[in-house]
Amino acid sequence: MSPLVKKSTGEFEEFDEQKLRRSLKHAGAIPSEIAKIIQQIRPLIHEGISTKRIFNHSFRLLRRYSQECARNYSLKKAIFELGPSGFLFEKYVAEVFKAKGFKVKVGVVKKGCCVKHEVDIIASRPDKTIYVECKFHNHPNRKNDVKTALYINSRFLDLKNNKANEFDEFYLVSNTLFSKDAVKYADCVGVKLLGINSSYGDDIQAIVNKYHLHPITSLQSLKKKHIHALMSREIVLAKSLLKQKKTLFELGLDEMEIKQVFSEIKNVRRSYE
Amino acid sequence: MSPLVKKSTGEFEEFDEQKLRRSLKHAGAIPSEIAKIIQQIRPLIHEGISTKRIFNHSFRLLRRYSQECARNYSLKKAIFELGPSGFLFEKYVAEVFKAKGFKVKVGVVKKGCCVKHEVDIIASRPDKTIYVECKFHNHPNRKNDVKTALYINSRFLDLKNNKANEFDEFYLVSNTLFSKDAVKYADCVGVKLLGINSSYGDDIQAIVNKYHLHPITSLQSLKKKHIHALMSREIVLAKSLLKQKKTLFELGLDEMEIKQVFSEIKNVRRSYE
Repeated sequence: MSPLVKKSTGEFEEFDEQKLRRSLKHAGAIPSEIAKIIQQIRPLIHEGISTKRIFNHSFRLLRRYSQECARNYSLKKAIFELGPSGFLFEKYVAEVFKAKGFKVKVGVVKKGCCVKHEVDIIASRPDKTIYVECKFHNHPNRKNDVKTALYINSRFLDLKNNKANEFDEFYLVSNTLFSKDAVKYADCVGVKLLGINSSYGDDIQAIVNKYHLHPITSLQSLKKKHIHALMSREIVLAKSLLKQKKTLFELGLDEMEIKQVFSEIKNVRRSYE
Repeated sequence: MSPLVKKSTGEFEEFDEQKLRRSLKHAGAIPSEIAKIIQQIRPLIHEGISTKRIFNHSFRLLRRYSQECARNYSLKKAIFELGPSGFLFEKYVAEVFKAKGFKVKVGVVKKGCCVKHEVDIIASRPDKTIYVECKFHNHPNRKNDVKTALYINSRFLDLKNNKANEFDEFYLVSNTLFSKDAVKYADCVGVKLLGINSSYGDDIQAIVNKYHLHPITSLQSLKKKHIHALMSREIVLAKSLLKQKKTLFELGLDEMEIKQVFSEIKNVRRSYE
Protein backbone atom coordinates (compact mmCIF):
# COMPACT_ATOMS: atom_id res chain seq x y z
CA MET A 1 0.00 0.00 0.00
CA SER A 2 1.26 3.47 -0.86
CA PRO A 3 1.62 6.02 1.96
CA LEU A 4 -1.34 8.27 2.73
CA VAL A 5 -0.83 11.84 1.53
CA LYS A 6 -2.80 14.90 2.58
CA LYS A 7 -4.92 16.67 -0.05
CA SER A 8 -5.61 20.41 -0.10
CA THR A 9 -9.10 19.66 1.24
CA GLY A 10 -7.58 18.15 4.39
CA GLU A 11 -8.57 14.62 3.36
CA PHE A 12 -6.05 11.81 3.03
CA GLU A 13 -5.64 9.53 0.04
CA GLU A 14 -3.12 6.93 -1.10
CA PHE A 15 -0.23 8.47 -3.02
CA ASP A 16 -0.99 8.06 -6.73
CA GLU A 17 2.14 8.06 -8.87
CA GLN A 18 0.09 8.02 -12.07
CA LYS A 19 -1.56 11.29 -11.08
CA LEU A 20 1.82 12.94 -10.62
CA ARG A 21 3.00 11.56 -13.98
CA ARG A 22 -0.07 12.97 -15.67
CA SER A 23 0.37 16.42 -14.15
CA LEU A 24 4.02 16.52 -15.21
CA LYS A 25 3.06 15.45 -18.72
CA HIS A 26 0.40 18.11 -18.73
CA ALA A 27 3.02 20.72 -17.81
CA GLY A 28 4.93 19.66 -20.94
CA ALA A 29 7.56 17.26 -19.53
CA ILE A 30 8.82 14.53 -21.87
CA PRO A 31 8.90 10.84 -20.74
CA SER A 32 12.63 10.78 -19.88
CA GLU A 33 12.22 13.89 -17.70
CA ILE A 34 9.16 12.41 -15.99
CA ALA A 35 11.10 9.23 -15.21
CA LYS A 36 14.00 11.19 -13.68
CA ILE A 37 11.67 13.34 -11.57
CA ILE A 38 9.65 10.38 -10.26
CA GLN A 39 12.90 8.66 -9.28
CA GLN A 40 13.94 11.67 -7.20
CA ILE A 41 10.50 12.21 -5.69
CA ARG A 42 9.86 8.60 -4.55
CA PRO A 43 12.21 8.65 -1.52
CA LEU A 44 10.53 11.86 -0.28
CA ILE A 45 7.00 10.45 -0.07
CA HIS A 46 6.15 9.74 3.54
CA GLU A 47 2.90 9.25 5.46
CA GLY A 48 1.12 12.60 5.86
CA ILE A 49 3.13 14.68 3.33
CA SER A 50 0.87 17.18 1.56
CA THR A 51 0.14 16.75 -2.14
CA LYS A 52 0.96 20.44 -2.52
CA ARG A 53 4.50 19.81 -1.28
CA ILE A 54 4.92 16.84 -3.60
CA PHE A 55 3.78 18.87 -6.60
CA ASN A 56 5.85 21.96 -5.70
CA HIS A 57 8.93 19.81 -5.35
CA SER A 58 8.25 18.02 -8.63
CA PHE A 59 7.83 21.29 -10.48
CA ARG A 60 11.07 22.64 -9.03
CA LEU A 61 12.80 19.56 -10.46
CA LEU A 62 10.99 19.97 -13.75
CA ARG A 63 12.22 23.55 -14.03
CA ARG A 64 15.74 22.26 -13.55
CA TYR A 65 15.41 19.75 -16.38
CA SER A 66 13.38 21.62 -18.91
CA GLN A 67 13.82 25.29 -19.69
CA GLU A 68 10.67 25.38 -21.83
CA CYS A 69 8.42 23.82 -19.19
CA ALA A 70 9.85 26.22 -16.67
CA ARG A 71 8.92 29.11 -18.95
CA ASN A 72 5.37 27.77 -19.45
CA TYR A 73 4.99 27.34 -15.75
CA SER A 74 6.20 30.83 -14.87
CA LEU A 75 4.22 32.48 -17.65
CA LYS A 76 1.02 30.95 -16.32
CA LYS A 77 1.92 32.14 -12.81
CA ALA A 78 2.86 35.64 -14.02
CA ILE A 79 -0.48 35.99 -15.83
CA PHE A 80 -2.34 35.01 -12.63
CA GLU A 81 -0.43 37.80 -10.89
CA LEU A 82 -2.06 40.34 -13.24
CA GLY A 83 -5.23 39.69 -11.15
CA PRO A 84 -7.20 39.63 -8.92
CA SER A 85 -9.54 41.61 -11.20
CA GLY A 86 -9.69 40.69 -14.88
CA PHE A 87 -8.97 44.23 -16.04
CA LEU A 88 -5.21 43.90 -16.66
CA PHE A 89 -5.72 40.48 -18.23
CA GLU A 90 -7.91 42.20 -20.83
CA LYS A 91 -5.17 44.78 -21.43
CA TYR A 92 -2.69 41.92 -21.73
CA VAL A 93 -4.82 40.00 -24.24
CA ALA A 94 -5.20 43.25 -26.20
CA GLU A 95 -1.38 43.33 -26.43
CA VAL A 96 -1.43 39.77 -27.79
CA PHE A 97 -3.71 40.85 -30.63
CA LYS A 98 -1.72 44.06 -31.20
CA ALA A 99 1.42 41.96 -31.63
CA LYS A 100 -0.38 40.03 -34.35
CA GLY A 101 -0.97 43.25 -36.30
CA PHE A 102 -4.46 44.15 -35.07
CA LYS A 103 -5.68 47.55 -33.99
CA VAL A 104 -7.53 47.07 -30.72
CA LYS A 105 -10.28 48.77 -28.72
CA VAL A 106 -11.02 47.64 -25.16
CA GLY A 107 -14.45 47.57 -23.46
CA VAL A 108 -16.71 48.62 -26.32
CA VAL A 109 -20.50 48.54 -25.83
CA LYS A 110 -22.26 47.20 -28.94
CA LYS A 111 -25.93 46.77 -29.69
CA GLY A 112 -26.98 43.23 -30.41
CA CYS A 113 -30.29 42.30 -31.98
CA CYS A 114 -31.99 41.98 -28.56
CA VAL A 115 -29.76 43.70 -25.96
CA LYS A 116 -26.49 45.63 -25.58
CA HIS A 117 -23.25 43.81 -24.82
CA GLU A 118 -19.86 44.97 -23.65
CA VAL A 119 -17.26 43.47 -25.97
CA ASP A 120 -13.98 43.14 -24.03
CA ILE A 121 -11.75 43.64 -27.08
CA ILE A 122 -12.44 44.50 -30.71
CA ALA A 123 -9.38 43.63 -32.82
CA SER A 124 -9.32 44.77 -36.45
CA ARG A 125 -6.87 44.17 -39.25
CA PRO A 126 -7.48 44.76 -42.99
CA ASP A 127 -8.21 41.04 -43.49
CA LYS A 128 -10.55 40.52 -40.53
CA THR A 129 -12.24 41.84 -37.41
CA ILE A 130 -12.40 39.78 -34.23
CA TYR A 131 -14.63 40.24 -31.17
CA VAL A 132 -12.95 38.94 -28.02
CA GLU A 133 -14.38 37.94 -24.65
CA CYS A 134 -11.84 37.49 -21.81
CA LYS A 135 -12.35 35.21 -18.80
CA PHE A 136 -9.86 35.67 -16.01
CA HIS A 137 -9.90 33.19 -13.13
CA ASN A 138 -7.95 33.55 -9.90
CA HIS A 139 -7.61 29.82 -9.34
CA PRO A 140 -5.65 27.57 -11.72
CA ASN A 141 -8.12 24.71 -11.25
CA ARG A 142 -11.11 26.82 -12.22
CA LYS A 143 -11.91 25.57 -15.71
CA ASN A 144 -14.08 27.41 -18.21
CA ASP A 145 -17.08 25.12 -18.34
CA VAL A 146 -19.60 24.59 -21.10
CA LYS A 147 -21.92 27.22 -19.57
CA THR A 148 -19.35 29.91 -20.35
CA ALA A 149 -19.06 28.72 -23.94
CA LEU A 150 -22.87 28.57 -24.24
CA TYR A 151 -23.31 32.10 -22.96
CA ILE A 152 -20.50 33.42 -25.17
CA ASN A 153 -22.13 31.88 -28.22
CA SER A 154 -25.51 33.50 -27.49
CA ARG A 155 -23.79 36.84 -27.12
CA PHE A 156 -22.01 36.22 -30.41
CA LEU A 157 -25.28 35.30 -32.17
CA ASP A 158 -27.09 38.33 -30.76
CA LEU A 159 -24.29 40.63 -31.96
CA LYS A 160 -24.19 38.87 -35.34
CA ASN A 161 -27.96 39.28 -35.76
CA ASN A 162 -27.52 43.05 -35.74
CA LYS A 163 -26.28 43.76 -39.26
CA ALA A 164 -24.55 46.94 -38.04
CA ASN A 165 -21.88 44.77 -36.39
CA GLU A 166 -19.39 43.45 -38.89
CA PHE A 167 -16.98 40.88 -37.55
CA ASP A 168 -15.52 37.62 -38.76
CA GLU A 169 -14.50 35.72 -35.66
CA PHE A 170 -15.49 35.48 -32.02
CA TYR A 171 -12.83 34.51 -29.47
CA LEU A 172 -13.02 33.35 -25.88
CA VAL A 173 -9.66 33.90 -24.20
CA SER A 174 -8.85 32.64 -20.71
CA ASN A 175 -5.91 32.17 -18.35
CA THR A 176 -7.16 28.72 -17.36
CA LEU A 177 -8.19 25.57 -19.20
CA PHE A 178 -11.47 24.86 -20.96
CA SER A 179 -13.54 21.81 -20.04
CA LYS A 180 -13.84 19.03 -22.62
CA ASP A 181 -17.46 19.93 -23.27
CA ALA A 182 -16.60 23.62 -23.63
CA VAL A 183 -14.01 22.73 -26.31
CA LYS A 184 -16.43 20.38 -28.06
CA TYR A 185 -19.23 22.94 -28.06
CA ALA A 186 -17.06 25.91 -29.10
CA ASP A 187 -15.60 23.84 -31.92
CA CYS A 188 -19.09 22.80 -33.02
CA VAL A 189 -20.56 26.33 -33.12
CA GLY A 190 -17.41 28.10 -34.34
CA VAL A 191 -16.33 30.07 -31.27
CA LYS A 192 -12.50 30.21 -31.21
CA LEU A 193 -10.76 29.42 -27.92
CA LEU A 194 -7.40 30.75 -26.84
CA GLY A 195 -5.78 29.54 -23.64
CA ILE A 196 -2.45 28.68 -22.08
CA ASN A 197 -0.96 25.26 -22.85
CA SER A 198 -4.13 24.40 -24.69
CA SER A 199 -3.96 21.32 -26.81
CA TYR A 200 -5.83 22.85 -29.73
CA GLY A 201 -5.28 25.74 -32.12
CA ASP A 202 -3.52 28.85 -30.91
CA ASP A 203 -1.74 28.95 -27.58
CA ILE A 204 -0.88 32.15 -25.70
CA GLN A 205 2.48 30.59 -24.73
CA ALA A 206 3.63 30.32 -28.35
CA ILE A 207 2.55 33.88 -29.14
CA VAL A 208 4.28 35.22 -26.02
CA ASN A 209 7.54 33.58 -27.01
CA LYS A 210 7.30 34.71 -30.62
CA TYR A 211 6.50 38.35 -29.84
CA HIS A 212 8.22 38.68 -26.42
CA LEU A 213 5.02 39.45 -24.59
CA HIS A 214 6.29 38.59 -21.13
CA PRO A 215 4.04 40.12 -18.48
CA ILE A 216 5.55 42.66 -16.15
CA THR A 217 4.78 40.24 -13.31
CA SER A 218 7.40 37.82 -14.68
CA LEU A 219 10.31 40.16 -13.83
CA GLN A 220 12.52 38.88 -11.00
CA SER A 221 14.65 42.02 -10.66
CA LEU A 222 11.74 44.31 -9.70
CA LYS A 223 10.33 44.57 -6.18
CA LYS A 224 6.68 43.56 -5.74
CA LYS A 225 5.68 47.09 -4.69
CA HIS A 226 7.20 48.48 -7.89
CA ILE A 227 5.43 45.87 -10.02
CA HIS A 228 2.13 46.84 -8.36
CA ALA A 229 2.81 50.53 -8.91
CA LEU A 230 3.47 49.89 -12.61
CA MET A 231 0.33 47.71 -12.86
CA SER A 232 -1.73 50.54 -11.37
CA ARG A 233 -0.45 52.63 -14.31
CA GLU A 234 -1.84 49.88 -16.57
CA ILE A 235 1.59 48.74 -17.74
CA VAL A 236 1.30 45.00 -18.43
CA LEU A 237 4.26 44.11 -20.66
CA ALA A 238 7.82 43.77 -19.38
CA LYS A 239 9.22 45.19 -22.61
CA SER A 240 7.13 48.38 -22.30
CA LEU A 241 9.47 49.38 -19.46
CA LEU A 242 12.32 49.85 -21.93
CA LYS A 243 10.53 53.08 -22.94
CA GLN A 244 9.57 54.01 -19.36
CA LYS A 245 12.91 54.88 -17.75
CA LYS A 246 11.42 58.10 -16.39
CA THR A 247 8.58 56.21 -14.69
CA LEU A 248 11.07 53.87 -13.03
CA PHE A 249 13.03 56.88 -11.71
CA GLU A 250 9.77 58.32 -10.38
CA LEU A 251 9.14 55.08 -8.49
CA GLY A 252 12.49 55.56 -6.76
CA LEU A 253 14.69 53.07 -8.62
CA ASP A 254 18.30 54.19 -9.15
CA GLU A 255 20.36 53.94 -12.36
CA MET A 256 21.90 50.63 -11.25
CA GLU A 257 18.52 48.99 -10.47
CA ILE A 258 17.05 50.17 -13.77
CA LYS A 259 20.03 48.72 -15.59
CA GLN A 260 19.37 45.35 -13.93
CA VAL A 261 15.68 45.42 -14.93
CA PHE A 262 16.52 46.34 -18.54
CA SER A 263 19.15 43.63 -18.66
CA GLU A 264 16.60 41.03 -17.45
CA ILE A 265 14.08 42.12 -20.08
CA LYS A 266 16.68 41.91 -22.85
CA ASN A 267 17.97 38.56 -21.62
CA VAL A 268 14.55 36.94 -21.62
CA ARG A 269 14.11 38.15 -25.17
CA ARG A 270 17.54 36.88 -26.24
CA SER A 271 16.93 33.45 -24.73
CA TYR A 272 14.11 32.90 -27.23
CA GLU A 273 16.05 34.11 -30.28
CA MET B 1 -30.65 65.93 6.94
CA SER B 2 -32.10 62.43 7.49
CA PRO B 3 -30.44 60.22 10.13
CA LEU B 4 -27.63 57.92 8.99
CA VAL B 5 -28.70 54.26 8.81
CA LYS B 6 -26.43 51.23 8.65
CA LYS B 7 -26.49 49.13 5.48
CA SER B 8 -25.91 45.35 5.38
CA THR B 9 -22.41 46.07 4.02
CA GLY B 10 -21.56 47.95 7.22
CA GLU B 11 -21.57 51.30 5.45
CA PHE B 12 -23.77 54.18 6.54
CA GLU B 13 -26.10 56.17 4.32
CA GLU B 14 -28.82 58.77 4.82
CA PHE B 15 -32.22 57.18 5.43
CA ASP B 16 -34.08 57.19 2.12
CA GLU B 17 -37.86 57.13 2.54
CA GLN B 18 -38.39 56.77 -1.21
CA LYS B 19 -36.41 53.54 -1.20
CA LEU B 20 -38.63 52.11 1.55
CA ARG B 21 -41.76 53.21 -0.37
CA ARG B 22 -40.48 51.48 -3.50
CA SER B 23 -39.74 48.22 -1.68
CA LEU B 24 -43.22 48.19 -0.10
CA LYS B 25 -44.79 48.87 -3.49
CA HIS B 26 -42.69 46.09 -4.95
CA ALA B 27 -44.03 43.72 -2.27
CA GLY B 28 -47.53 44.56 -3.48
CA ALA B 29 -48.68 47.22 -0.97
CA ILE B 30 -51.22 49.78 -2.21
CA PRO B 31 -50.65 53.57 -1.69
CA SER B 32 -52.92 53.86 1.38
CA GLU B 33 -51.11 50.96 3.09
CA ILE B 34 -47.71 52.47 2.22
CA ALA B 35 -48.76 55.80 3.75
CA LYS B 36 -49.90 54.13 6.97
CA ILE B 37 -46.71 52.08 7.28
CA ILE B 38 -44.40 55.05 6.63
CA GLN B 39 -46.26 57.03 9.31
CA GLN B 40 -45.62 54.28 11.86
CA ILE B 41 -42.00 53.74 10.82
CA ARG B 42 -40.89 57.40 10.88
CA PRO B 43 -40.66 57.76 14.70
CA LEU B 44 -38.50 54.58 14.85
CA ILE B 45 -35.74 55.84 12.56
CA HIS B 46 -32.74 56.88 14.64
CA GLU B 47 -29.05 57.39 13.91
CA GLY B 48 -27.35 54.02 13.43
CA ILE B 49 -30.45 51.80 13.07
CA SER B 50 -29.83 49.04 10.52
CA THR B 51 -31.71 49.07 7.20
CA LYS B 52 -32.49 45.39 7.86
CA ARG B 53 -34.36 46.33 11.04
CA ILE B 54 -36.28 49.07 9.25
CA PHE B 55 -37.33 46.70 6.47
CA ASN B 56 -38.23 43.83 8.80
CA HIS B 57 -40.39 46.15 10.85
CA SER B 58 -42.08 47.58 7.75
CA PHE B 59 -42.89 44.13 6.45
CA ARG B 60 -44.35 43.08 9.79
CA LEU B 61 -46.67 46.08 9.53
CA LEU B 62 -47.43 45.26 5.89
CA ARG B 63 -48.45 41.76 6.88
CA ARG B 64 -50.86 43.26 9.39
CA TYR B 65 -52.52 45.44 6.73
CA SER B 66 -52.57 43.20 3.72
CA GLN B 67 -53.29 39.48 3.79
CA GLU B 68 -52.28 39.03 0.17
CA CYS B 69 -48.93 40.80 0.52
CA ALA B 70 -48.30 38.72 3.60
CA ARG B 71 -48.94 35.57 1.61
CA ASN B 72 -46.62 36.70 -1.21
CA TYR B 73 -43.96 37.53 1.29
CA SER B 74 -44.19 34.23 3.15
CA LEU B 75 -44.36 32.19 -0.03
CA LYS B 76 -41.12 33.72 -1.25
CA LYS B 77 -39.52 33.02 2.14
CA ALA B 78 -40.88 29.44 2.24
CA ILE B 79 -39.44 28.73 -1.21
CA PHE B 80 -36.02 30.03 -0.08
CA GLU B 81 -36.24 27.56 2.80
CA LEU B 82 -36.38 24.68 0.31
CA GLY B 83 -32.63 25.41 -0.23
CA PRO B 84 -29.71 25.66 0.23
CA SER B 85 -29.26 23.31 -2.75
CA GLY B 86 -31.53 23.76 -5.74
CA PHE B 87 -32.67 20.13 -5.71
CA LEU B 88 -35.97 20.57 -3.84
CA PHE B 89 -36.74 23.74 -5.78
CA GLU B 90 -36.63 21.58 -8.95
CA LYS B 91 -39.00 19.09 -7.32
CA TYR B 92 -41.24 22.00 -6.34
CA VAL B 93 -41.28 23.49 -9.85
CA ALA B 94 -42.09 20.01 -11.18
CA GLU B 95 -45.19 20.07 -8.90
CA VAL B 96 -46.18 23.43 -10.43
CA PHE B 97 -46.18 21.89 -13.90
CA LYS B 98 -47.92 18.74 -12.65
CA ALA B 99 -50.71 20.91 -11.24
CA LYS B 100 -51.13 22.40 -14.71
CA GLY B 101 -51.77 18.94 -16.14
CA PHE B 102 -48.27 18.03 -17.33
CA LYS B 103 -46.49 14.74 -16.86
CA VAL B 104 -43.01 15.54 -15.60
CA LYS B 105 -39.54 14.00 -15.64
CA VAL B 106 -36.76 15.52 -13.53
CA GLY B 107 -33.02 15.65 -14.45
CA VAL B 108 -33.04 14.11 -17.92
CA VAL B 109 -29.82 14.09 -19.96
CA LYS B 110 -30.52 14.93 -23.61
CA LYS B 111 -28.17 15.08 -26.58
CA GLY B 112 -27.99 18.45 -28.26
CA CYS B 113 -26.48 19.02 -31.67
CA CYS B 114 -23.01 19.72 -30.18
CA VAL B 115 -22.99 18.43 -26.58
CA LYS B 116 -25.18 16.71 -23.97
CA HIS B 117 -27.29 18.78 -21.55
CA GLU B 118 -29.10 17.94 -18.35
CA VAL B 119 -32.64 19.25 -18.66
CA ASP B 120 -33.95 19.98 -15.14
CA ILE B 121 -37.59 19.19 -15.97
CA ILE B 122 -39.33 17.84 -19.05
CA ALA B 123 -43.07 18.57 -18.83
CA SER B 124 -45.40 17.00 -21.38
CA ARG B 125 -49.10 17.34 -22.05
CA PRO B 126 -50.96 16.26 -25.21
CA ASP B 127 -50.88 19.85 -26.53
CA LYS B 128 -47.22 20.65 -25.83
CA THR B 129 -43.87 19.65 -24.37
CA ILE B 130 -41.81 22.08 -22.32
CA TYR B 131 -38.14 21.91 -21.34
CA VAL B 132 -37.48 23.67 -18.05
CA GLU B 133 -34.27 25.04 -16.53
CA CYS B 134 -34.43 25.95 -12.81
CA LYS B 135 -32.22 28.57 -11.14
CA PHE B 136 -32.34 28.59 -7.37
CA HIS B 137 -30.59 31.41 -5.50
CA ASN B 138 -30.02 31.55 -1.76
CA HIS B 139 -30.07 35.32 -1.61
CA PRO B 140 -33.21 37.34 -2.45
CA ASN B 141 -31.14 40.13 -4.03
CA ARG B 142 -29.36 37.77 -6.40
CA LYS B 143 -31.03 38.53 -9.74
CA ASN B 144 -30.88 36.31 -12.78
CA ASP B 145 -28.74 38.40 -15.09
CA VAL B 146 -28.60 38.45 -18.86
CA LYS B 147 -25.71 35.93 -18.82
CA THR B 148 -28.07 33.28 -17.45
CA ALA B 149 -30.63 34.03 -20.15
CA LEU B 150 -27.90 33.97 -22.82
CA TYR B 151 -26.58 30.60 -21.65
CA ILE B 152 -30.08 29.14 -21.40
CA ASN B 153 -30.85 30.20 -24.95
CA SER B 154 -27.71 28.54 -26.33
CA ARG B 155 -28.66 25.35 -24.54
CA PHE B 156 -32.15 25.63 -25.98
CA LEU B 157 -30.79 26.16 -29.52
CA ASP B 158 -28.36 23.26 -29.21
CA LEU B 159 -31.17 20.96 -28.05
CA LYS B 160 -33.48 22.26 -30.78
CA ASN B 161 -30.82 21.64 -33.44
CA ASN B 162 -30.98 17.93 -32.68
CA LYS B 163 -34.13 16.81 -34.46
CA ALA B 164 -34.54 13.92 -32.01
CA ASN B 165 -35.66 16.42 -29.36
CA GLU B 166 -39.21 17.52 -29.84
CA PHE B 167 -40.36 20.34 -27.63
CA ASP B 168 -42.39 23.50 -28.02
CA GLU B 169 -41.29 25.83 -25.26
CA PHE B 170 -38.23 26.48 -23.17
CA TYR B 171 -38.70 27.89 -19.64
CA LEU B 172 -36.32 29.49 -17.19
CA VAL B 173 -37.81 29.33 -13.69
CA SER B 174 -36.25 31.04 -10.68
CA ASN B 175 -37.02 31.94 -7.08
CA THR B 176 -35.58 35.43 -7.55
CA LEU B 177 -36.12 38.26 -10.01
CA PHE B 178 -34.76 38.59 -13.54
CA SER B 179 -32.72 41.64 -14.54
CA LYS B 180 -34.27 44.05 -17.05
CA ASP B 181 -31.85 42.91 -19.75
CA ALA B 182 -32.57 39.25 -18.99
CA VAL B 183 -36.32 39.90 -19.49
CA LYS B 184 -35.68 41.89 -22.67
CA TYR B 185 -33.39 39.22 -24.12
CA ALA B 186 -35.60 36.25 -23.15
CA ASP B 187 -38.59 38.00 -24.64
CA CYS B 188 -36.68 38.73 -27.84
CA VAL B 189 -35.44 35.15 -28.39
CA GLY B 190 -38.56 33.40 -27.08
CA VAL B 191 -37.35 31.89 -23.80
CA LYS B 192 -40.24 31.94 -21.28
CA LEU B 193 -39.54 33.24 -17.78
CA LEU B 194 -41.38 32.21 -14.66
CA GLY B 195 -40.64 33.89 -11.35
CA ILE B 196 -42.25 35.07 -8.14
CA ASN B 197 -44.05 38.42 -8.22
CA SER B 198 -42.80 38.89 -11.75
CA SER B 199 -44.45 41.69 -13.65
CA TYR B 200 -44.78 39.73 -16.87
CA GLY B 201 -46.59 36.59 -17.96
CA ASP B 202 -47.05 33.74 -15.52
CA ASP B 203 -46.28 34.14 -11.85
CA ILE B 204 -45.60 31.26 -9.45
CA GLN B 205 -47.64 33.10 -6.77
CA ALA B 206 -50.85 32.96 -8.81
CA ILE B 207 -50.36 29.28 -9.66
CA VAL B 208 -49.64 28.43 -6.01
CA ASN B 209 -52.85 30.07 -4.89
CA LYS B 210 -54.91 28.49 -7.64
CA TYR B 211 -53.65 24.94 -7.10
CA HIS B 212 -52.78 25.14 -3.37
CA LEU B 213 -49.10 24.46 -3.93
CA HIS B 214 -47.90 25.81 -0.58
CA PRO B 215 -44.43 24.51 0.19
CA ILE B 216 -44.00 22.36 3.24
CA THR B 217 -41.70 25.08 4.62
CA SER B 218 -44.68 27.42 4.94
CA LEU B 219 -46.29 25.37 7.72
CA GLN B 220 -46.23 27.10 11.12
CA SER B 221 -47.54 24.13 13.12
CA LEU B 222 -44.58 21.85 12.30
CA LYS B 223 -41.24 21.99 14.13
CA LYS B 224 -38.19 22.87 12.01
CA LYS B 225 -36.60 19.44 12.63
CA HIS B 226 -39.75 17.73 11.32
CA ILE B 227 -39.86 19.95 8.25
CA HIS B 228 -36.21 19.06 7.53
CA ALA B 229 -36.93 15.35 8.04
CA LEU B 230 -39.81 15.56 5.54
CA MET B 231 -37.65 17.53 3.09
CA SER B 232 -35.00 14.82 3.27
CA ARG B 233 -37.76 12.44 2.11
CA GLU B 234 -38.24 14.80 -0.85
CA ILE B 235 -41.68 15.96 0.29
CA VAL B 236 -42.07 19.56 -0.90
CA LEU B 237 -45.81 20.30 -0.81
CA ALA B 238 -47.76 20.95 2.38
CA LYS B 239 -50.83 19.20 0.99
CA SER B 240 -48.87 15.97 0.32
CA LEU B 241 -48.84 15.47 4.09
CA LEU B 242 -52.59 14.82 4.08
CA LYS B 243 -51.70 11.40 2.59
CA GLN B 244 -48.64 10.90 4.83
CA LYS B 245 -50.15 10.41 8.29
CA LYS B 246 -47.99 7.30 8.78
CA THR B 247 -44.81 9.26 8.06
CA LEU B 248 -45.79 11.92 10.59
CA PHE B 249 -46.31 9.20 13.21
CA GLU B 250 -42.87 7.78 12.34
CA LEU B 251 -41.34 11.22 12.97
CA GLY B 252 -42.79 11.13 16.48
CA LEU B 253 -45.80 13.45 16.14
CA ASP B 254 -48.84 12.44 18.16
CA GLU B 255 -52.48 12.37 17.03
CA MET B 256 -53.10 15.87 18.42
CA GLU B 257 -50.11 17.44 16.66
CA ILE B 258 -51.01 15.78 13.35
CA LYS B 259 -54.54 17.13 13.70
CA GLN B 260 -53.11 20.64 14.09
CA VAL B 261 -50.91 20.26 11.01
CA PHE B 262 -53.81 18.94 8.90
CA SER B 263 -56.02 21.73 10.11
CA GLU B 264 -53.42 24.35 9.11
CA ILE B 265 -53.10 22.79 5.63
CA LYS B 266 -56.89 22.78 5.15
CA ASN B 267 -57.26 26.31 6.48
CA VAL B 268 -54.69 27.76 4.10
CA ARG B 269 -56.56 26.09 1.28
CA ARG B 270 -59.91 27.37 2.48
CA SER B 271 -58.64 30.92 2.83
CA TYR B 272 -58.10 31.02 -0.95
CA GLU B 273 -61.46 29.53 -1.88
